[in-house]
Amino acid sequence: MPEVILGQGKTPDQVAGIAQALLAKSHNLLLTRATPEMAARVKELEPQAEHFPSSGVVRVWRDRTIYGKGKIAAICAGTSDLPVLEEAQLTAEVMGNSVDVISDVGVAGIHRLLNQRDKLMDARVAIVCAGMEGALPSVVGGLVGCPVIAVPTSIGYGASFHGLAALLGMLNSCASNVTVVNIDNGFGAGYVASLINRLG
Amino acid sequence: MPEVILGQGKTPDQVAGIAQALLAKSHNLLLTRATPEMAARVKELEPQAEHFPSSGVVRVWRDRTIYGKGKIAAICAGTSDLPVLEEAQLTAEVMGNSVDVISDVGVAGIHRLLNQRDKLMDARVAIVCAGMEGALPSVVGGLVGCPVIAVPTSIGYGASFHGLAALLGMLNSCASNVTVVNIDNGFGAGYVASLINRLG
Amino acid sequence: MPEVILGQGKTPDQVAGIAQALLAKSHNLLLTRATPEMAARVKELEPQAEHFPSSGVVRVWRDRTIYGKGKIAAICAGTSDLPVLEEAQLTAEVMGNSVDVISDVGVAGIHRLLNQRDKLMDARVAIVCAGMEGALPSVVGGLVGCPVIAVPTSIGYGASFHGLAALLGMLNSCASNVTVVNIDNGFGAGYVASLINRLG
Amino acid sequence: MPEVILGQGKTPDQVAGIAQALLAKSHNLLLTRATPEMAARVKELEPQAEHFPSSGVVRVWRDRTIYGKGKIAAICAGTSDLPVLEEAQLTAEVMGNSVDVISDVGVAGIHRLLNQRDKLMDARVAIVCAGMEGALPSVVGGLVGCPVIAVPTSIGYGASFHGLAALLGMLNSCASNVTVVNIDNGFGAGYVASLINRLG
Amino acid sequence: MPEVILGQGKTPDQVAGIAQALLAKSHNLLLTRATPEMAARVKELEPQAEHFPSSGVVRVWRDRTIYGKGKIAAICAGTSDLPVLEEAQLTAEVMGNSVDVISDVGVAGIHRLLNQRDKLMDARVAIVCAGMEGALPSVVGGLVGCPVIAVPTSIGYGASFHGLAALLGMLNSCASNVTVVNIDNGFGAGYVASLINRLG
Amino acid sequence: MPEVILGQGKTPDQVAGIAQALLAKSHNLLLTRATPEMAARVKELEPQAEHFPSSGVVRVWRDRTIYGKGKIAAICAGTSDLPVLEEAQLTAEVMGNSVDVISDVGVAGIHRLLNQRDKLMDARVAIVCAGMEGALPSVVGGLVGCPVIAVPTSIGYGASFHGLAALLGMLNSCASNVTVVNIDNGFGAGYVASLINRLG
Amino acid sequence: MPEVILGQGKTPDQVAGIAQALLAKSHNLLLTRATPEMAARVKELEPQAEHFPSSGVVRVWRDRTIYGKGKIAAICAGTSDLPVLEEAQLTAEVMGNSVDVISDVGVAGIHRLLNQRDKLMDARVAIVCAGMEGALPSVVGGLVGCPVIAVPTSIGYGASFHGLAALLGMLNSCASNVTVVNIDNGFGAGYVASLINRLG
Amino acid sequence: MPEVILGQGKTPDQVAGIAQALLAKSHNLLLTRATPEMAARVKELEPQAEHFPSSGVVRVWRDRTIYGKGKIAAICAGTSDLPVLEEAQLTAEVMGNSVDVISDVGVAGIHRLLNQRDKLMDARVAIVCAGMEGALPSVVGGLVGCPVIAVPTSIGYGASFHGLAALLGMLNSCASNVTVVNIDNGFGAGYVASLINRLG
Repeated sequence: MPEVILGQGKTPDQVAGIAQALLAKSHNLLLTRATPEMAARVKELEPQAEHFPSSGVVRVWRDRTIYGKGKIAAICAGTSDLPVLEEAQLTAEVMGNSVDVISDVGVAGIHRLLNQRDKLMDARVAIVCAGMEGALPSVVGGLVGCPVIAVPTSIGYGASFHGLAALLGMLNSCASNVTVVNIDNGFGAGYVASLINRLG
Repeated sequence: MPEVILGQGKTPDQVAGIAQALLAKSHNLLLTRATPEMAARVKELEPQAEHFPSSGVVRVWRDRTIYGKGKIAAICAGTSDLPVLEEAQLTAEVMGNSVDVISDVGVAGIHRLLNQRDKLMDARVAIVCAGMEGALPSVVGGLVGCPVIAVPTSIGYGASFHGLAALLGMLNSCASNVTVVNIDNGFGAGYVASLINRLG
Repeated sequence: MPEVILGQGKTPDQVAGIAQALLAKSHNLLLTRATPEMAARVKELEPQAEHFPSSGVVRVWRDRTIYGKGKIAAICAGTSDLPVLEEAQLTAEVMGNSVDVISDVGVAGIHRLLNQRDKLMDARVAIVCAGMEGALPSVVGGLVGCPVIAVPTSIGYGASFHGLAALLGMLNSCASNVTVVNIDNGFGAGYVASLINRLG
Repeated sequence: MPEVILGQGKTPDQVAGIAQALLAKSHNLLLTRATPEMAARVKELEPQAEHFPSSGVVRVWRDRTIYGKGKIAAICAGTSDLPVLEEAQLTAEVMGNSVDVISDVGVAGIHRLLNQRDKLMDARVAIVCAGMEGALPSVVGGLVGCPVIAVPTSIGYGASFHGLAALLGMLNSCASNVTVVNIDNGFGAGYVASLINRLG
Repeated sequence: MPEVILGQGKTPDQVAGIAQALLAKSHNLLLTRATPEMAARVKELEPQAEHFPSSGVVRVWRDRTIYGKGKIAAICAGTSDLPVLEEAQLTAEVMGNSVDVISDVGVAGIHRLLNQRDKLMDARVAIVCAGMEGALPSVVGGLVGCPVIAVPTSIGYGASFHGLAALLGMLNSCASNVTVVNIDNGFGAGYVASLINRLG
Repeated sequence: MPEVILGQGKTPDQVAGIAQALLAKSHNLLLTRATPEMAARVKELEPQAEHFPSSGVVRVWRDRTIYGKGKIAAICAGTSDLPVLEEAQLTAEVMGNSVDVISDVGVAGIHRLLNQRDKLMDARVAIVCAGMEGALPSVVGGLVGCPVIAVPTSIGYGASFHGLAALLGMLNSCASNVTVVNIDNGFGAGYVASLINRLG
Repeated sequence: MPEVILGQGKTPDQVAGIAQALLAKSHNLLLTRATPEMAARVKELEPQAEHFPSSGVVRVWRDRTIYGKGKIAAICAGTSDLPVLEEAQLTAEVMGNSVDVISDVGVAGIHRLLNQRDKLMDARVAIVCAGMEGALPSVVGGLVGCPVIAVPTSIGYGASFHGLAALLGMLNSCASNVTVVNIDNGFGAGYVASLINRLG
Repeated sequence: MPEVILGQGKTPDQVAGIAQALLAKSHNLLLTRATPEMAARVKELEPQAEHFPSSGVVRVWRDRTIYGKGKIAAICAGTSDLPVLEEAQLTAEVMGNSVDVISDVGVAGIHRLLNQRDKLMDARVAIVCAGMEGALPSVVGGLVGCPVIAVPTSIGYGASFHGLAALLGMLNSCASNVTVVNIDNGFGAGYVASLINRLG
């Protein structure tokens, strides 16, 4: 398991201190919700660290062993949900999984999603990120037989109430194979998907 | 236009009094959210009145002229949403429309919906009723080119919050052709669909 | 139909890339919720693009054919709601409609609204934008016989809760011809009004 | 001033005990939110007591002196709001006011309201009860120059959220002369209107 | 009556244009929620205009006739509520009233409030501004016999939810003489208090 | 310490089984939120058990040793809050405390509260129950120097939202010595007050 | 996979009709949220059907093959959460899993939970049901390395808001291996746990 | 007792004025939610004033007498909650208490908390700060027998809703010895803990 730091609510000094300690005992490290300054501090400690500015992830991926027994599909509707999807993908990868990314498949253009059915069917577990009405997990859940982890995103405006609409939609999904994590919690989705994919 | 009475919040005496006055000047009458006692009172006034207990509608449909220029599709996901759908259908019919009912087409079984594509394409305006996550209008909206009137229903439990989840989902629909009415407001959806279908 | 891009949640590079692809295949383009930088990027691609800073709309309107069968009335109460009204108006125009704008007709000065009754009666479909208590659609709905699309705006303070008060008001409208779109969703209102106005 | 008992949350015994004590020292008594049993108990104590079942008010009105300097207008949109209006009216009357009741004047039928303009103009203070979207106080507020006390009612369904929609609407009224009391608080409105009407 | 402009949601140009028109026909003008730039623009038009930065009010008070029949008491608990109190006070003054300001009388130090009892008793109408738990109007309402207009303020943090706690508290006041306006709506309170104080 | 059973959510059989086991090892037992049937079952087990129907408490108080170092004041505004106050009182008593009950001291009649100042000053810890606006703890908190445990009650209607208004008010108390328990949680308040009163 | 019917929102006739059709093609059937009348109707169709009144489940379990690769732990804090736990357990069993039930292990008595550590460690996936503050999944999540499916229950009162407090708590869990389903959705948790447990 | 100023909502001038007056009559002063400018102004008045930037506290601690009868434990889960914990600690210290700080003991790593059991058992009153799901007070409450004051913090994202999830969790704690203060109200917790710790 990689070590993980949640950057939010910490100072760059605190992050750097924790990162240094963790890098001494673990090959891999994931820092989420990092500011650019935090990213720079971790890069000083480990030049191989990668910084992904759109999701705010910093990843140290020194041990790239694959532990997953199959593929994880990471799916989102459109461009705006990509940062959350990226957090999920980077998490799953650093935990030793092969991840298939499927984007631009919103529910209002259902045939683009159906065109990806082979990829969907190939997944052992699916992560679905969606903002606005958050309907994508229900549709994906109906297409696949595997567990679906739904991630509401805060994308939207007005009555999306910063992701509340998507969250409520996913909790009320009529697809029985859907569970839900917190709004914008790509990390949590990637983490649980990895645990599931290791089973076997 | 038929005359309309909202039964909720009125006494059977009040309903009977209003119904009597309206029936004297109008061929058609729609009473919504009626109790069985209200229905009985209206049937005393007009034996042809029909009572639909599951939706609570009482309808006097003496003039059955068709005013609509095309078909209205009335769509819902499952058995539980049928009462709201029925209110919409009865309203649209009494306002002079031909209505195509499509049920049992939830988003978690997308192919059942796609199998109805011909009927959907044939509609000049669509009414879509859904509870729980309320995702069906977005999917229908992406399939058809006509206006879609979304009706959130109070079907669900827990975090559906009596239809709030479905309502928020529909307001945040990524399909541009969707507008929304109040929770369980099948009447309103049938009414506006009729107005739209008369245009031409 | 014009192509449409929602600027919010995208980078200027993403917007420019999408715009370039769409302009190659479509005469008209609408970019909503655009930053000034996005507007500049689209103007580089197409010098005729117009930028409307108060609503954040960028419009490429190369084909100005009128498809609407009648007039769309776009109505708001006061100065502060004008940006949302503008988004609705620009959308309806680029989709081939003639739009009548009626502003400064709040419900607390009902005679200013009644003075516009001729214009209202002339509309085939009405868009009504209102913040604060969001009462204008109910009053307009009672005056006209056509469909009314209500747009709650986030204008207000305190217990307006960023448009929630107006949204709830409109969903509970006692006028039967009112449907509702998301808070500040002028685009959606303009889009659906255009679909309705094409019928015939 | 009459003595007042809020029946809700008390037992009939408690109500009877308090009523007996108050009737010994005061000519007038108002009991609100009374159950039929409470009403019967007060009638035992004072046979002149009147019971108004639809509003749940019991009134002992032995001293009918008029203290108000002018008329109070009590206005509501429709049949369903009448119980709350009645509570306001009975309160204002027992406090020594002449009350003009104006009902069936909803905002979606604005001309019925305008037809009552003389009565409205004659009022020294206005009470306006409305459920659903709660828009009536804003329209009345714009027509009259006197203070308007708005009473949201719990009438409605779905997104009315038991009067919340009407309450928020009234708090955000664009008419400057509107203040608001609690949902269904006809008593409070009648009480404050009486205080205002005594000034002079 | 003075003319009134709500600055919020308008541009400085719009404000200046409206102010110029209004100043040509009215002696007094009140501009609320004004930015410093708006204030400067009005001062260019009328050098006597006063700017009150903490409340954001700009006032042109050329006609200082007193129309009020008695005194208005304007009361708040502490330093943080003063801006809202100031908006109420300036409004009432420009509408021709004499205003008694009573501050630093929070409910947790009840004797400071009781020490002001003479001033309170002298008022014909009272305005009470309070944030946090919003309890002051109930206590004042119990001490005075006149109408009390309660203004919840957005002062507080955490579970004050930007004034919601104070608003709900005031709506549920156990004092019968309390009505409520929107959060931070000092203007509305001053306006209604002035209307009441003119009666006689 | 007495043993405690929360009756809510349990069947009478479950309650009787737990009560039997606990009575075998403890002198005192408190059963809260009990139905009459649960009360009867406990009385079968222990004839000395007392049933308090208004609060739903069943108490077995075989060991009446006083452990408290001083007095606990239990205060509420009016008749309707008495059931919650009773639950707090019975809890504190069975835990070995002497409790002073002070009722009918609402914030809108502040002098009734001030008349009880000697009793208040005598308390080592105070419990204050209030519904509606929930302002009483702030006023009591300002009068006493001891810790105040505030209990919001669900008494009220409309915008009290089943105790939410009182809860928020108490959480935002401007008195620094106030902490809060759940709505209607008289038991919790009595329990913590007992713990505090044992210190010494 | 067993066939599943959600009883809520259907009539007994509808349930019986669906059950008959499904029993003809599937060995196992699960009916959730069933009324006693629905249960009786299914028992008429299949005498082996079991009815579990506390959870409202009816189960036809003709094929008892074990498909799960390991054990599912089903955990709850106390007596009141047992009905939801039962729904999860029955679902997982009918889907071919061996389920270990661990109850009476609330977070306020942490040692009772720690005493069950062997059983917890033995699980391949854990279901945790909790009402009130909903903290149990976080503690369990920290103890085990497997995926945890958290089920908020509607058990509680006051500020539990019918399970909202537990739901929010679980969504914000600081344990990374927790995902969440709807309030009281024992079925969903059992279903997803079964899917996970089949992997291998 | 030290004097206390709440910096929020005041200007630096106001704070400096109040501080000067209070320092003339009191040895100790606590300024909470101070901006750096406020801190500088107080340091000008009293060079011994300490500024704690992460919590925003300024403390003048000239009289360091210990009044507490025992130790106060101040506990939080992680780095992000430290500012709120610090506010509580500084408050308790300036009120004459010895405070034991226990941090980094989140519920998802229960053994780190259990390792601190001696320190916990040693406390006469405990303060527990937690964001996200806010579960720590329940676990601590089950371990200790003393009163626990729970402080929800605004740490978290998405469905933490700025501390609402933690607040609701704590109000619904299944541990009977827990009371709650406002979100981020470290001061209030420190204040009440001090009052309790002085008893004896």
